[in-house]
Amino acid sequence: MNDAHRKLSGRVVIATHNPGKLREMRELLAPYGIEAVSAGDLGLIEPDETGLTFLANAELKARAAAEVSGLPAFADDSGLCVDALDGDPGIYSARWAKEAGDFTAAMAHVHALMQARGAPTPRAHFVSALAIVWPDGHLEQFEGKVFGDIVWPPRGDKGFGYDPFFQPDGHSRTFGEMSSDEKHGIPADGSQALSHRARAFQDLSKACFE
Amino acid sequence: MNDAHRKLSGRVVIATHNPGKLREMRELLAPYGIEAVSAGDLGLIEPDETGLTFLANAELKARAAAEVSGLPAFADDSGLCVDALDGDPGIYSARWAKEAGDFTAAMAHVHALMQARGAPTPRAHFVSALAIVWPDGHLEQFEGKVFGDIVWPPRGDKGFGYDPFFQPDGHSRTFGEMSSDEKHGIPADGSQALSHRARAFQDLSKACFE
Repeated sequence: MNDAHRKLSGRVVIATHNPGKLREMRELLAPYGIEAVSAGDLGLIEPDETGLTFLANAELKARAAAEVSGLPAFADDSGLCVDALDGDPGIYSARWAKEAGDFTAAMAHVHALMQARGAPTPRAHFVSALAIVWPDGHLEQFEGKVFGDIVWPPRGDKGFGYDPFFQPDGHSRTFGEMSSDEKHGIPADGSQALSHRARAFQDLSKACFE
Repeated sequence: MNDAHRKLSGRVVIATHNPGKLREMRELLAPYGIEAVSAGDLGLIEPDETGLTFLANAELKARAAAEVSGLPAFADDSGLCVDALDGDPGIYSARWAKEAGDFTAAMAHVHALMQARGAPTPRAHFVSALAIVWPDGHLEQFEGKVFGDIVWPPRGDKGFGYDPFFQPDGHSRTFGEMSSDEKHGIPADGSQALSHRARAFQDLSKACFE
Protein backbone atom coordinates (compact mmCIF):
# COMPACT_ATOMS: atom_id res chain seq x y z
CA MET A 1 0.00 0.00 0.00
CA ASN A 2 1.44 3.29 -1.11
CA ASP A 3 -0.59 6.10 0.45
CA ALA A 4 1.17 8.85 -1.52
CA HIS A 5 -0.67 7.80 -4.68
CA ARG A 6 -4.34 7.55 -5.59
CA LYS A 7 -5.68 4.06 -6.31
CA LEU A 8 -7.30 3.20 -9.62
CA SER A 9 -10.36 0.97 -9.85
CA GLY A 10 -13.47 0.35 -11.95
CA ARG A 11 -13.70 1.80 -15.44
CA VAL A 12 -11.01 3.83 -17.16
CA VAL A 13 -10.77 5.50 -20.56
CA ILE A 14 -7.67 4.68 -22.62
CA ALA A 15 -6.87 8.00 -24.29
CA THR A 16 -5.40 6.70 -27.51
CA HIS A 17 -6.64 6.12 -31.04
CA ASN A 18 -3.73 3.75 -31.77
CA PRO A 19 -5.11 0.16 -31.89
CA GLY A 20 -1.72 -1.35 -30.96
CA LYS A 21 -1.34 0.81 -27.85
CA LEU A 22 -4.99 0.22 -26.92
CA ARG A 23 -4.55 -3.55 -27.06
CA GLU A 24 -1.32 -3.42 -25.06
CA MET A 25 -2.80 -1.16 -22.36
CA ARG A 26 -5.92 -3.33 -22.06
CA GLU A 27 -3.70 -6.40 -21.56
CA LEU A 28 -1.69 -4.60 -18.88
CA LEU A 29 -4.80 -3.40 -17.00
CA ALA A 30 -6.94 -6.55 -17.21
CA PRO A 31 -5.17 -8.46 -14.38
CA TYR A 32 -6.09 -5.63 -12.00
CA GLY A 33 -9.83 -5.84 -12.74
CA ILE A 34 -9.81 -2.53 -14.64
CA GLU A 35 -12.41 -2.23 -17.40
CA ALA A 36 -10.82 -0.23 -20.22
CA VAL A 37 -12.98 1.82 -22.58
CA SER A 38 -11.33 3.30 -25.66
CA ALA A 39 -11.42 7.03 -26.39
CA GLY A 40 -12.45 6.18 -29.94
CA ASP A 41 -15.48 4.21 -28.72
CA LEU A 42 -16.59 7.27 -26.73
CA GLY A 43 -16.13 9.52 -29.76
CA LEU A 44 -13.40 11.56 -28.06
CA ILE A 45 -11.12 13.70 -30.20
CA GLU A 46 -7.34 13.63 -29.57
CA PRO A 47 -5.95 17.02 -28.50
CA ASP A 48 -2.91 18.60 -30.18
CA GLU A 49 0.30 17.39 -28.53
CA THR A 50 1.66 20.81 -27.64
CA GLY A 51 3.65 19.62 -24.60
CA LEU A 52 7.44 19.78 -24.58
CA THR A 53 7.96 16.60 -22.54
CA PHE A 54 6.68 13.04 -22.80
CA LEU A 55 4.80 13.48 -19.53
CA ALA A 56 3.19 16.76 -20.60
CA ASN A 57 1.82 15.11 -23.73
CA ALA A 58 0.60 12.02 -21.86
CA GLU A 59 -1.09 14.30 -19.32
CA LEU A 60 -2.85 16.49 -21.85
CA LYS A 61 -4.26 13.47 -23.70
CA ALA A 62 -5.47 11.95 -20.40
CA ARG A 63 -6.86 15.27 -19.13
CA ALA A 64 -8.90 15.89 -22.26
CA ALA A 65 -10.39 12.39 -22.09
CA ALA A 66 -11.17 12.64 -18.36
CA GLU A 67 -12.90 15.99 -18.74
CA VAL A 68 -15.17 14.82 -21.55
CA SER A 69 -15.88 11.30 -20.29
CA GLY A 70 -16.18 11.87 -16.56
CA LEU A 71 -14.02 8.78 -16.03
CA PRO A 72 -10.39 8.40 -14.99
CA ALA A 73 -8.33 8.45 -18.18
CA PHE A 74 -5.05 6.76 -18.97
CA ALA A 75 -2.60 7.90 -21.68
CA ASP A 76 0.90 7.11 -22.90
CA ASP A 77 3.52 9.15 -24.71
CA SER A 78 6.74 7.54 -25.79
CA GLY A 79 9.75 7.87 -28.06
CA LEU A 80 13.36 7.13 -28.83
CA CYS A 81 16.09 9.46 -27.48
CA VAL A 82 19.43 9.25 -29.31
CA ASP A 83 22.47 10.39 -27.28
CA ALA A 84 24.39 11.69 -30.33
CA LEU A 85 21.38 13.83 -31.30
CA ASP A 86 21.00 15.35 -27.81
CA GLY A 87 17.93 13.23 -27.20
CA ASP A 88 16.18 13.68 -30.57
CA PRO A 89 13.81 12.54 -31.98
CA GLY A 90 12.43 12.17 -28.42
CA ILE A 91 8.91 13.61 -28.17
CA TYR A 92 8.99 14.08 -31.94
CA SER A 93 9.59 10.35 -32.66
CA ALA A 94 6.15 9.77 -34.17
CA ARG A 95 6.20 13.12 -36.01
CA TRP A 96 9.58 12.38 -37.62
CA ALA A 97 8.17 9.08 -38.88
CA LYS A 98 5.04 10.74 -40.21
CA GLU A 99 7.01 13.49 -41.97
CA ALA A 100 9.60 11.07 -43.39
CA GLY A 101 6.90 8.66 -44.60
CA ASP A 102 7.59 5.77 -42.22
CA PHE A 103 9.83 4.70 -39.36
CA THR A 104 12.53 3.30 -41.64
CA ALA A 105 12.79 6.60 -43.53
CA ALA A 106 12.90 8.48 -40.23
CA MET A 107 15.65 6.20 -38.98
CA ALA A 108 17.65 6.64 -42.19
CA HIS A 109 17.53 10.36 -41.38
CA VAL A 110 18.60 9.71 -37.78
CA HIS A 111 21.45 7.51 -39.04
CA ALA A 112 22.61 10.19 -41.50
CA LEU A 113 22.55 12.87 -38.77
CA MET A 114 24.58 10.59 -36.49
CA GLN A 115 27.16 9.89 -39.20
CA ALA A 116 27.45 13.61 -39.91
CA ARG A 117 28.73 13.98 -36.34
CA GLY A 118 31.83 11.88 -37.03
CA ALA A 119 32.05 8.56 -35.22
CA PRO A 120 29.32 9.03 -32.67
CA THR A 121 28.21 6.79 -29.85
CA PRO A 122 25.40 4.41 -30.90
CA ARG A 123 23.71 4.88 -27.51
CA ALA A 124 20.00 5.58 -27.19
CA HIS A 125 17.09 4.97 -24.86
CA PHE A 126 13.37 4.53 -25.19
CA VAL A 127 11.10 6.49 -22.85
CA SER A 128 7.48 5.76 -21.99
CA ALA A 129 5.49 8.28 -19.98
CA LEU A 130 2.16 7.20 -18.50
CA ALA A 131 -0.41 9.60 -17.07
CA ILE A 132 -3.70 8.92 -15.29
CA VAL A 133 -6.00 11.92 -14.79
CA TRP A 134 -9.18 11.71 -12.72
CA PRO A 135 -12.28 13.86 -13.47
CA ASP A 136 -11.46 16.06 -10.44
CA GLY A 137 -8.09 16.86 -12.05
CA HIS A 138 -5.88 14.59 -9.93
CA LEU A 139 -2.82 13.37 -11.84
CA GLU A 140 -0.58 10.35 -11.37
CA GLN A 141 2.48 10.10 -13.64
CA PHE A 142 5.13 7.45 -14.32
CA GLU A 143 8.09 7.07 -16.62
CA GLY A 144 10.04 4.01 -17.77
CA LYS A 145 13.33 3.88 -19.70
CA VAL A 146 15.35 1.18 -21.40
CA PHE A 147 18.93 1.75 -22.57
CA GLY A 148 20.74 0.25 -25.55
CA ASP A 149 22.33 0.77 -28.97
CA ILE A 150 21.01 2.04 -32.28
CA VAL A 151 21.23 -0.69 -34.92
CA TRP A 152 21.60 0.06 -38.63
CA PRO A 153 20.37 -1.55 -40.85
CA PRO A 154 17.26 -2.71 -38.96
CA ARG A 155 16.83 -6.29 -37.77
CA GLY A 156 13.57 -8.14 -37.16
CA ASP A 157 9.95 -7.72 -38.15
CA LYS A 158 8.23 -7.93 -34.76
CA GLY A 159 7.11 -5.06 -32.56
CA PHE A 160 6.41 -1.71 -34.20
CA GLY A 161 7.87 1.76 -34.71
CA TYR A 162 11.59 1.99 -34.00
CA ASP A 163 11.81 -1.53 -32.48
CA PRO A 164 13.99 -3.09 -35.25
CA PHE A 165 16.56 -0.29 -34.81
CA PHE A 166 17.13 -0.72 -31.06
CA GLN A 167 19.10 -3.43 -29.25
CA PRO A 168 18.63 -3.26 -25.47
CA ASP A 169 21.70 -3.72 -23.26
CA GLY A 170 22.39 -7.31 -22.26
CA HIS A 171 20.68 -8.70 -25.36
CA SER A 172 22.01 -9.66 -28.79
CA ARG A 173 18.68 -9.13 -30.54
CA THR A 174 16.70 -5.98 -31.30
CA PHE A 175 13.18 -5.31 -30.00
CA GLY A 176 12.13 -6.18 -33.57
CA GLU A 177 13.52 -9.69 -33.07
CA MET A 178 11.78 -10.33 -29.73
CA SER A 179 8.39 -11.79 -28.95
CA SER A 180 5.79 -9.50 -27.44
CA ASP A 181 6.08 -11.41 -24.17
CA GLU A 182 9.88 -11.09 -24.03
CA LYS A 183 9.71 -7.35 -24.72
CA HIS A 184 6.58 -6.35 -22.79
CA GLY A 185 5.93 -9.15 -20.31
CA ILE A 186 5.77 -8.33 -16.60
CA PRO A 187 7.93 -10.96 -14.80
CA ALA A 188 5.87 -12.90 -12.26
CA ASP A 189 8.81 -12.89 -9.80
CA GLY A 190 8.68 -9.12 -9.44
CA SER A 191 11.95 -8.49 -11.31
CA GLN A 192 12.23 -5.61 -13.75
CA ALA A 193 10.48 -5.87 -17.11
CA LEU A 194 12.45 -5.11 -20.28
CA SER A 195 10.55 -2.52 -22.29
CA HIS A 196 10.16 1.13 -21.33
CA ARG A 197 6.35 0.86 -21.31
CA ALA A 198 6.33 -2.28 -19.17
CA ARG A 199 8.76 -0.62 -16.72
CA ALA A 200 6.57 2.48 -16.43
CA PHE A 201 3.59 0.18 -15.90
CA GLN A 202 5.40 -1.66 -13.10
CA ASP A 203 5.83 1.67 -11.29
CA LEU A 204 2.18 2.52 -11.92
CA SER A 205 0.93 -0.81 -10.59
CA LYS A 206 3.01 -0.49 -7.41
CA ALA A 207 1.67 3.04 -6.82
CA CYS A 208 -1.95 2.72 -7.91
CA PHE A 209 -2.89 -0.93 -7.38
CA GLU A 210 -1.02 -2.02 -4.23
CA MET B 1 4.82 33.89 -29.41
CA ASN B 2 3.73 30.41 -28.50
CA ASP B 3 0.00 30.44 -27.77
CA ALA B 4 -0.05 26.87 -26.48
CA HIS B 5 1.72 27.96 -23.30
CA ARG B 6 0.86 30.45 -20.57
CA LYS B 7 3.15 33.47 -20.23
CA LEU B 8 4.98 34.22 -17.00
CA SER B 9 5.39 37.78 -15.70
CA GLY B 10 5.72 39.76 -12.49
CA ARG B 11 6.63 37.98 -9.25
CA VAL B 12 7.32 34.29 -8.91
CA VAL B 13 8.22 32.06 -5.96
CA ILE B 14 11.27 29.84 -6.39
CA ALA B 15 10.25 26.64 -4.62
CA THR B 16 13.64 25.55 -3.36
CA HIS B 17 15.55 25.79 -0.10
CA ASN B 18 18.84 25.09 -1.90
CA PRO B 19 20.86 28.36 -2.03
CA GLY B 20 22.81 27.24 -5.12
CA LYS B 21 19.68 26.45 -7.10
CA LEU B 22 18.01 29.66 -5.90
CA ARG B 23 20.92 31.77 -7.12
CA GLU B 24 21.03 29.99 -10.46
CA MET B 25 17.28 30.31 -11.04
CA ARG B 26 17.33 34.01 -10.10
CA GLU B 27 20.11 34.59 -12.64
CA LEU B 28 18.14 32.77 -15.34
CA LEU B 29 14.91 34.71 -14.65
CA ALA B 30 16.36 38.20 -14.15
CA PRO B 31 16.80 39.01 -17.88
CA TYR B 32 13.06 38.47 -18.37
CA GLY B 33 12.07 41.01 -15.71
CA ILE B 34 10.84 38.32 -13.34
CA GLU B 35 11.13 39.15 -9.64
CA ALA B 36 12.02 35.95 -7.82
CA VAL B 37 11.02 35.45 -4.17
CA SER B 38 12.45 32.44 -2.35
CA ALA B 39 10.21 29.86 -0.69
CA GLY B 40 12.39 30.14 2.38
CA ASP B 41 11.81 33.90 2.64
CA LEU B 42 8.05 33.25 2.62
CA GLY B 43 8.38 30.59 5.32
CA LEU B 44 7.15 27.83 3.02
CA ILE B 45 7.85 24.22 3.95
CA GLU B 46 9.13 21.80 1.29
CA PRO B 47 6.74 18.90 0.65
CA ASP B 48 7.88 15.27 0.61
CA GLU B 49 9.14 14.28 -2.84
CA THR B 50 6.80 11.33 -3.33
CA GLY B 51 6.75 11.57 -7.12
CA LEU B 52 8.21 8.82 -9.28
CA THR B 53 9.50 11.11 -12.05
CA PHE B 54 11.60 14.28 -12.12
CA LEU B 55 8.61 16.23 -13.44
CA ALA B 56 6.25 14.91 -10.76
CA ASN B 57 8.63 16.08 -8.03
CA ALA B 58 9.19 19.47 -9.65
CA GLU B 59 5.43 19.88 -9.98
CA LEU B 60 4.60 18.96 -6.39
CA LYS B 61 7.18 21.40 -5.03
CA ALA B 62 5.83 24.17 -7.29
CA ARG B 63 2.19 23.34 -6.54
CA ALA B 64 2.70 23.47 -2.77
CA ALA B 65 4.43 26.86 -3.04
CA ALA B 66 1.78 28.30 -5.40
CA GLU B 67 -1.08 27.21 -3.16
CA VAL B 68 0.39 28.76 -0.03
CA SER B 69 1.84 31.93 -1.59
CA GLY B 70 -0.85 32.84 -4.11
CA LEU B 71 1.95 33.49 -6.65
CA PRO B 72 3.14 31.47 -9.64
CA ALA B 73 5.80 29.09 -8.36
CA PHE B 74 8.83 27.69 -10.12
CA ALA B 75 10.62 24.46 -9.12
CA ASP B 76 13.35 22.17 -10.41
CA ASP B 77 14.08 18.50 -9.95
CA SER B 78 17.19 17.00 -11.42
CA GLY B 79 19.53 14.02 -11.31
CA LEU B 80 22.03 11.76 -13.00
CA CYS B 81 20.79 8.70 -14.94
CA VAL B 82 23.40 6.00 -15.53
CA ASP B 83 22.72 3.68 -18.49
CA ALA B 84 24.37 0.63 -16.90
CA LEU B 85 22.17 1.07 -13.82
CA ASP B 86 18.94 1.30 -15.84
CA GLY B 87 18.77 5.02 -15.15
CA ASP B 88 19.65 5.00 -11.44
CA PRO B 89 20.25 7.02 -9.30
CA GLY B 90 17.87 9.23 -11.35
CA ILE B 91 15.23 10.82 -9.12
CA TYR B 92 17.11 9.40 -6.14
CA SER B 93 20.39 11.21 -6.97
CA ALA B 94 20.21 13.58 -4.00
CA ARG B 95 18.94 10.84 -1.69
CA TRP B 96 21.81 8.50 -2.60
CA ALA B 97 24.26 11.29 -1.76
CA LYS B 98 22.53 12.02 1.54
CA GLU B 99 22.47 8.34 2.53
CA ALA B 100 26.08 7.72 1.45
CA GLY B 101 27.30 10.84 3.22
CA ASP B 102 28.26 12.93 0.20
CA PHE B 103 28.30 12.88 -3.60
CA THR B 104 31.73 11.25 -3.78
CA ALA B 105 30.63 8.37 -1.56
CA ALA B 106 27.45 8.00 -3.61
CA MET B 107 29.50 7.92 -6.80
CA ALA B 108 31.88 5.33 -5.36
CA HIS B 109 28.76 3.20 -4.86
CA VAL B 110 27.59 3.89 -8.43
CA HIS B 111 31.06 2.98 -9.71
CA ALA B 112 31.09 -0.29 -7.74
CA LEU B 113 27.63 -1.22 -9.04
CA MET B 114 28.77 -0.51 -12.60
CA GLN B 115 31.91 -2.64 -12.20
CA ALA B 116 29.83 -5.48 -10.77
CA ARG B 117 28.05 -5.60 -14.12
CA GLY B 118 31.21 -6.58 -15.99
CA ALA B 119 32.60 -4.06 -18.44
CA PRO B 120 29.65 -1.73 -18.69
CA THR B 121 29.14 1.31 -20.85
CA PRO B 122 30.22 4.54 -19.12
CA ARG B 123 27.23 6.37 -20.62
CA ALA B 124 24.98 8.60 -18.52
CA HIS B 125 22.83 11.69 -18.81
CA PHE B 126 21.75 14.48 -16.55
CA VAL B 127 18.07 15.45 -16.49
CA SER B 128 16.56 18.72 -15.28
CA ALA B 129 12.79 19.02 -14.95
CA LEU B 130 11.29 22.49 -14.49
CA ALA B 131 7.71 23.12 -13.44
CA ILE B 132 5.76 26.37 -13.10
CA VAL B 133 2.41 26.15 -11.30
CA TRP B 134 0.02 29.11 -11.13
CA PRO B 135 -2.35 29.66 -8.17
CA ASP B 136 -5.30 28.51 -10.33
CA GLY B 137 -3.52 25.17 -10.80
CA HIS B 138 -2.22 25.69 -14.35
CA LEU B 139 1.04 23.81 -14.98
CA GLU B 140 3.83 24.34 -17.50
CA GLN B 141 6.60 21.73 -17.58
CA PHE B 142 9.96 21.42 -19.34
CA GLU B 143 12.82 18.94 -19.37
CA GLY B 144 16.45 19.24 -20.47
CA LYS B 145 19.03 16.49 -20.91
CA VAL B 146 22.76 16.37 -21.54
CA PHE B 147 24.56 13.15 -22.54
CA GLY B 148 28.07 12.03 -21.72
CA ASP B 149 30.35 9.61 -19.85
CA ILE B 150 30.82 8.77 -16.20
CA VAL B 151 34.34 9.67 -15.08
CA TRP B 152 36.11 7.88 -12.22
CA PRO B 153 38.00 9.17 -10.27
CA PRO B 154 36.41 12.65 -10.27
CA ARG B 155 38.02 15.64 -11.96
CA GLY B 156 37.58 19.29 -11.07
CA ASP B 157 36.33 21.28 -8.11
CA LYS B 158 33.81 23.56 -9.79
CA GLY B 159 30.05 23.09 -10.01
CA PHE B 160 28.36 20.92 -7.40
CA GLY B 161 26.85 17.48 -6.85
CA TYR B 162 27.87 14.93 -9.48
CA ASP B 163 29.52 17.51 -11.76
CA PRO B 164 33.15 16.24 -11.35
CA PHE B 165 32.02 12.72 -12.35
CA PHE B 166 30.41 13.65 -15.69
CA GLN B 167 32.09 14.56 -18.98
CA PRO B 168 29.60 15.84 -21.57
CA ASP B 169 29.94 14.61 -25.16
CA GLY B 170 32.16 16.76 -27.34
CA HIS B 171 34.19 18.01 -24.38
CA SER B 172 37.41 16.74 -22.78
CA ARG B 173 36.63 18.24 -19.38
CA THR B 174 34.04 17.33 -16.76
CA PHE B 175 31.33 19.73 -15.54
CA GLY B 176 33.54 20.02 -12.43
CA GLU B 177 36.30 21.51 -14.62
CA MET B 178 34.08 24.08 -16.36
CA SER B 179 33.21 27.62 -15.42
CA SER B 180 29.64 28.36 -14.45
CA ASP B 181 29.21 30.34 -17.66
CA GLU B 182 30.51 27.52 -19.86
CA LYS B 183 28.23 24.98 -18.17
CA HIS B 184 25.10 27.06 -17.56
CA GLY B 185 25.36 30.04 -19.89
CA ILE B 186 22.58 30.67 -22.42
CA PRO B 187 24.30 31.38 -25.79
CA ALA B 188 23.31 34.80 -27.11
CA ASP B 189 23.14 33.43 -30.68
CA GLY B 190 20.24 31.14 -29.81
CA SER B 191 22.27 27.91 -30.08
CA GLN B 192 21.78 25.15 -27.56
CA ALA B 193 23.14 25.61 -24.04
CA LEU B 194 25.27 22.85 -22.52
CA SER B 195 23.81 21.90 -19.15
CA HIS B 196 20.54 20.05 -18.63
CA ARG B 197 19.11 22.89 -16.54
CA ALA B 198 20.07 25.58 -19.05
CA ARG B 199 18.54 23.48 -21.86
CA ALA B 200 15.26 23.06 -19.94
CA PHE B 201 15.32 26.80 -19.29
CA GLN B 202 15.76 27.53 -23.01
CA ASP B 203 12.56 25.56 -23.70
CA LEU B 204 10.80 27.39 -20.88
CA SER B 205 11.82 30.82 -22.13
CA LYS B 206 10.65 30.05 -25.67
CA ALA B 207 7.27 28.85 -24.36
CA CYS B 208 6.60 31.29 -21.52
CA PHE B 209 8.45 34.49 -22.42
CA GLU B 210 8.18 34.77 -26.23
